[in-house]
Amino acid sequence: MIVGAAQMGPVERRHTADEVSERMVALLEKASARGVELLVFPELASVPFFPHWVIEDREELLSYYDLDTPFARVAPLFTRAAELGIAVVMGYAERTNEGRLFNSSVLADEHGDVALKYRKVHLPGFGEPQRAEHQLLEKRYFEVGDLGFPVVDWKRTRLGLAICNDRRWAETYRMLALARAEIVCIGYNTPVKTPHLPEIDTLTEFHNHLSMQAGAYQNSLWVIGVGKGGVEEGVEQIGGSVIVAPSGEIVALASSRDDEVITADIDLDMVKKYRRDVFNFAHHRRPEHYGAITAPVDPRWSDDVRRVGALPGSDDDGA
Amino acid sequence: MIVGAAQMGPVERRHTADEVSERMVALLEKASARGVELLVFPELASVPFFPHWVIEDREELLSYYDLDTPFARVAPLFTRAAELGIAVVMGYAERTNEGRLFNSSVLADEHGDVALKYRKVHLPGFGEPQRAEHQLLEKRYFEVGDLGFPVVDWKRTRLGLAICNDRRWAETYRMLALARAEIVCIGYNTPVKTPHLPEIDTLTEFHNHLSMQAGAYQNSLWVIGVGKGGVEEGVEQIGGSVIVAPSGEIVALASSRDDEVITADIDLDMVKKYRRDVFNFAHHRRPEHYGAITAPVDPRWSDDVRRVGALPGSDDDGA
Repeated sequence: MIVGAAQMGPVERRHTADEVSERMVALLEKASARGVELLVFPELASVPFFPHWVIEDREELLSYYDLDTPFARVAPLFTRAAELGIAVVMGYAERTNEGRLFNSSVLADEHGDVALKYRKVHLPGFGEPQRAEHQLLEKRYFEVGDLGFPVVDWKRTRLGLAICNDRRWAETYRMLALARAEIVCIGYNTPVKTPHLPEIDTLTEFHNHLSMQAGAYQNSLWVIGVGKGGVEEGVEQIGGSVIVAPSGEIVALASSRDDEVITADIDLDMVKKYRRDVFNFAHHRRPEHYGAITAPVDPRWSDDVRRVGALPGSDDDGA
Repeated sequence: MIVGAAQMGPVERRHTADEVSERMVALLEKASARGVELLVFPELASVPFFPHWVIEDREELLSYYDLDTPFARVAPLFTRAAELGIAVVMGYAERTNEGRLFNSSVLADEHGDVALKYRKVHLPGFGEPQRAEHQLLEKRYFEVGDLGFPVVDWKRTRLGLAICNDRRWAETYRMLALARAEIVCIGYNTPVKTPHLPEIDTLTEFHNHLSMQAGAYQNSLWVIGVGKGGVEEGVEQIGGSVIVAPSGEIVALASSRDDEVITADIDLDMVKKYRRDVFNFAHHRRPEHYGAITAPVDPRWSDDVRRVGALPGSDDDGA
């Protein structure tokens, strides 16, 4: 099965939806020419990553959200994908009929039908603005996802979705692997610089790959990880989109921070071989010893963190 | 705080306990000269890794086990460590007064007192011999650990222990980090070759490091990982002992597969900074969405695995 990741360069406020659609269709056509059956686009693919700044105006804020699915905003993409028979995963800001706001991802299958929807569980950053070069306001603009980690049988395999910060939490991959996912599609927007912790700025690409490689290996699954790179609204983001095998090896890697398609012909039997021989969950896992993982975090944990001092310029003391 | 890993070359049946003690004391002296406060030895450090072969004779089997602690077998090591004021972690086969058998690890503090004991939770391999180049009979020779993932406050930090295969399971590090461990000491014996899955033989060192680097990074803790390398009783094992920072970076690496000490001067504040700014468990984890992790594994999981066929030469079909 040939799969692809459609990395994107910056999407800025000055770009119209038509311009963005055109770029996405161009990536889709490239993927089609390479025989791709499943193409994954980044988190919040068709809009700027607006949690990077404060938006006071409610109307402006809501302009970044799509009602239920992203199909209307970038209609040409989904129309063309269905014509070509390519399944598409795409991240978007979701507004529900009830006005709830989520950081979501949807799988439109090869017929253009919604086959799977996921709402981001791990929202990084803060609910309130910080004194920092750029903001991380996901906790302000989104609710925590309420769908858990759903999966779907699709063609000859089983898919799960995750979004950005989810990929740094081992629970994400484990939940999906326990639900028997064989491919996990992850979109992201990752600034090169981490506010408050400049000493890790040189490690951003390493951490991106480390998390996805470990997630793939330790759960015997394929990971398709795709970012929106380059300088977007003044914030520089990494590229580094990858396709990772159940061996943890990167088998395809983007070489730019711009619009770029990477593909791989993936062997789904690798999943089963690794699950049989190395990570046989039924034989080796010991859920009876994992109790704290599903329990509330020990309050002493926050006391430890507080000992290193408050975040610079933050009302937040790490509690 | 300066910490060290004492990698060891093969310990074979022909080696006497005195010979092994002598090697371990030599490593300890080297570590002492480098200012080490905590020195970690491998899994089953002072005996050959006997789960690699079938032992029918009960007396011979029990000769590899130590009653309660490994202090008697390698007494000179622990005597000298207490004289030097160095805390030692060491893996051993534990026999209890009741005759129960565990793959264990113990922390003898700088006074030579038992400060922490751990019994391996993730036992790889099989309960019955397989048709393979070497055996993996940990499920035959040991019970699953019954102590969970304990931690202990020690000096200016908090320690946890893990053993070999534990390091490939994300739950291990997570349980220890939730219990506020800041340093995790891991001993291992890892054959270069994986029976039944020869295509991953070239990846053994990569997987060793990938697991420990991801565990360190995703849990904001230091990992000291130390193996017994070289050809031991006919089975070639990796070295690759490391000290890994909370950044996931390897800050010390063994360059041999033989007796070798590596050390690092580790910054414990890094733990708290990462926990405050990147992996703030109290802010970002969502235990309510992790339910399946502590539940029994879905029986359909084994059906999937079975589809790829039985292990070659095994009575075990992956169920």
